[in-house]
Amino acid sequence: MTDLLLVLDRRRGHLATQLASELRAAIRSGRLAPGLRLPATRTLARDLGVSRGVVVEAYDQLIAEGFLVARQGDCTRVASPGAVPASPPAPVLPPVPVPQSAPAPHSRPTLQRASNARPSTRPDLFRPYGREVPRYDLRPGTPDLAAFPRQRWASLVRRVLNDLPADALGYPDPAGVPALRAGLAAYLRRVRAAQAEATQVVVLSGVAQGIAALASLLRRRHELPVVAIEDPSSPGEHQVLRAAGIEPIGVPVDDEGLDVEYLNRTRAHAALVTPAHQYPTGVVLSPRRRAALVAWARERDALIIEDDYDAEFRYDREPVGCLQGLAPDHVVLLGSVSKSLAPGFRIGWAVAPAEVAAELGAYRAVSDLGSPVLEQHTLAAMLSEGYFDRHVRTMRRTYRARRDALVGELTTRLPWAPIRGVSAGLHVYVDLADLSEDAVVSAARERGVAVEGGRSTWLAADNPPPALILGYARLPERRIAEAVALLAEVCPPRT
Amino acid sequence: MTDLLLVLDRRRGHLATQLASELRAAIRSGRLAPGLRLPATRTLARDLGVSRGVVVEAYDQLIAEGFLVARQGDCTRVASPGAVPASPPAPVLPPVPVPQSAPAPHSRPTLQRASNARPSTRPDLFRPYGREVPRYDLRPGTPDLAAFPRQRWASLVRRVLNDLPADALGYPDPAGVPALRAGLAAYLRRVRAAQAEATQVVVLSGVAQGIAALASLLRRRHELPVVAIEDPSSPGEHQVLRAAGIEPIGVPVDDEGLDVEYLNRTRAHAALVTPAHQYPTGVVLSPRRRAALVAWARERDALIIEDDYDAEFRYDREPVGCLQGLAPDHVVLLGSVSKSLAPGFRIGWAVAPAEVAAELGAYRAVSDLGSPVLEQHTLAAMLSEGYFDRHVRTMRRTYRARRDALVGELTTRLPWAPIRGVSAGLHVYVDLADLSEDAVVSAARERGVAVEGGRSTWLAADNPPPALILGYARLPERRIAEAVALLAEVCPPRT
Repeated sequence: MTDLLLVLDRRRGHLATQLASELRAAIRSGRLAPGLRLPATRTLARDLGVSRGVVVEAYDQLIAEGFLVARQGDCTRVASPGAVPASPPAPVLPPVPVPQSAPAPHSRPTLQRASNARPSTRPDLFRPYGREVPRYDLRPGTPDLAAFPRQRWASLVRRVLNDLPADALGYPDPAGVPALRAGLAAYLRRVRAAQAEATQVVVLSGVAQGIAALASLLRRRHELPVVAIEDPSSPGEHQVLRAAGIEPIGVPVDDEGLDVEYLNRTRAHAALVTPAHQYPTGVVLSPRRRAALVAWARERDALIIEDDYDAEFRYDREPVGCLQGLAPDHVVLLGSVSKSLAPGFRIGWAVAPAEVAAELGAYRAVSDLGSPVLEQHTLAAMLSEGYFDRHVRTMRRTYRARRDALVGELTTRLPWAPIRGVSAGLHVYVDLADLSEDAVVSAARERGVAVEGGRSTWLAADNPPPALILGYARLPERRIAEAVALLAEVCPPRT
Repeated sequence: MTDLLLVLDRRRGHLATQLASELRAAIRSGRLAPGLRLPATRTLARDLGVSRGVVVEAYDQLIAEGFLVARQGDCTRVASPGAVPASPPAPVLPPVPVPQSAPAPHSRPTLQRASNARPSTRPDLFRPYGREVPRYDLRPGTPDLAAFPRQRWASLVRRVLNDLPADALGYPDPAGVPALRAGLAAYLRRVRAAQAEATQVVVLSGVAQGIAALASLLRRRHELPVVAIEDPSSPGEHQVLRAAGIEPIGVPVDDEGLDVEYLNRTRAHAALVTPAHQYPTGVVLSPRRRAALVAWARERDALIIEDDYDAEFRYDREPVGCLQGLAPDHVVLLGSVSKSLAPGFRIGWAVAPAEVAAELGAYRAVSDLGSPVLEQHTLAAMLSEGYFDRHVRTMRRTYRARRDALVGELTTRLPWAPIRGVSAGLHVYVDLADLSEDAVVSAARERGVAVEGGRSTWLAADNPPPALILGYARLPERRIAEAVALLAEVCPPRT
């Protein structure tokens, strides 16, 4: 049976989304009966005149949602009645924890939620700072750049330039200079409980390059690689995957982090996750889920891509160790100095199984020939001489005070708006309840307060929940209070 | 007709090369008659169970060689008898010019040429320096690293760190910081006669990244992009193209540079060329050929990728201006500081038509988010304050003296070995006549002299001419004389 009466319209945009939507409706209406065998992806693609990838993507999304079932070596079928969801899966959000250092939030208002449909273009989270300079910048993604230890860095650059042999200024090992690889291995073993030898560390320009390189690796290993990603997650990472020809599949996040059971129903070859501090919801992946995620990777021989983006900053207790330490054969740990020092340095790293590390080095050898050597040696000196740790400790105190100020002000002035996530990182996620996210963002901007909405972080939901993602790293406490007062003015008063 | 009786063996390696070789033999033997219509690429690919790209590549190679003819909108046919070459095209080399500052070379010996068949793996020209340190390093690709102005660079880093506003340490514009883009535009207008505005300049990590990014752009624009490259040329660039999924087509080089008539017979969408100083033969693209190459690009709406790798160094007169200045709508100029300062800085640039520049910036936004900001600002200061020009002028005098020493010693001690190319750059190409390249390279290494053979620079020739590519940038004159004396010892004496 290939006559599914499906209608796709190229002008309406993303074909896989349309196809998934048509199939979903046909299954719900009963037009496609439970147990019905669907055409092979190749056949349906030919019938519809689309690429096979479109059909694979649509099937995978519906398998993940429970509308379809697929078994190894068998065809894809419509799921049995009990398994089919009655309506599209609603965006899942973790419950509201009691914010640290702040009173419990009020109950959520029951007014109708404003429409929050997605616009066609999305902001780029990796470049949240446009050229304009707002009076109060509460957008996430960048640490306090004014606190960067400039004199120290300049002194270390001078010393490195004095000490380096001339040959060290030649073409570097694309995988990184040995001093930095060894320094990062030691640091990540100590601070993140990673299982890392220097040979497993590959220096990168940042997490984005790591994702691009791993996407390229997955495309070499699989004809049509399927990559799962937390939903919501960083829109910059969605863009990097899409540019590499991979449309990510969204997996919900709840109060324990990624829903691994949901992941188990997909055909994903890899999962991109933020276990230390989920972006943007701020949840920490629970011990039970960590075990389940590792079991998934071992069973499927899949790859876990662990984005450890702000793991240096946990305020209520020590951060949990990285996933890579639990399963070094199946996890690639990605990190950078973008949150700990400054994004402008463009230095990051991967800790990977030996054969993946070799492929990442080879990727750099044919894409950019590696990172600048002076900055690599300077960071190696920062690490080995303790200046990096000292800077992180200082900033942890600063950011904790700023987070406490922000959470306190929000709880006082917007008591109806739940704040999500643990006391960590450089941002909080604020639920806007029934308000229009766009209206709040643009009214705040008019008052000189730059904030970012949550919408662009959602991958699959048709009507994502209105929210703000507030970055507190760059404003001192007093200015945070002023900014929240302005923000409260643009949110309609509650009774 | 699809029954061509072709036999391909996946274990024997590159399928397109095998297919081209089978077709060539069938045409020469008369089994495939002149005028015979070949199957469509899609049909033959299906029959042989290979991807269409394999067939397209094989056809294109044979069209370039004159065995097949194809006209727009028509099928591909076996060429008429007069057009079919009697034997595979021999590697073409430019005639031997009289080397500057040295006596005319002796006549070439007539002994049988040693076999110089290609090994299965190739050295990586972008990383010519292994970890071992030879006594005399005459390998090409790296400037004199000991001459890098370290104190100046360290001072500028300190000043830049003092002066930069904090926000400048955030995520940069992936296309480069404005100060460097403007500085490079002014420099390239002045020194290379480029037609460059700051908005057309995109900062890169080097020429390799430029080629990788343009390969990605060509893959978006064409289903099966065809890229022509000079043969011989840099093996590192072959590798970058192959990693991006593009098998380059070789076009011969003669004493006027790239053979544009040959290029005209290909279906190339882009040509990667080194007009200022062909690598490795050292030829300068003649004015007539420049005009023909630009005409080709305009007629086909094709892209010329101009690798301006060592254009700063011309010793007998001013360097000719870049091609980009002649046809800014069809040329992307790529350059870097790898030869002028040091490769370890990983800074390069593209000057491109507006829409290509936008795509290159977008490429960086989804692959690595741009280059480190401190090094960009430091290089901008080097340029605007004249330190860069001063360093290049100093190095030009140094390198000229070293080249004269090398050419003089070679002419005295290996008078039978012709030296090719103009007085420019950081290397010379030495024809080894009938000697075995491998034997010379390994015997020299045993005496502590590291040299590179020419074999890896050939793309298409089955039996490339034995040669040495000698880099003279890193040895002072006295040591060059010692190295050439040792080299002469390993070359059998001539009578």
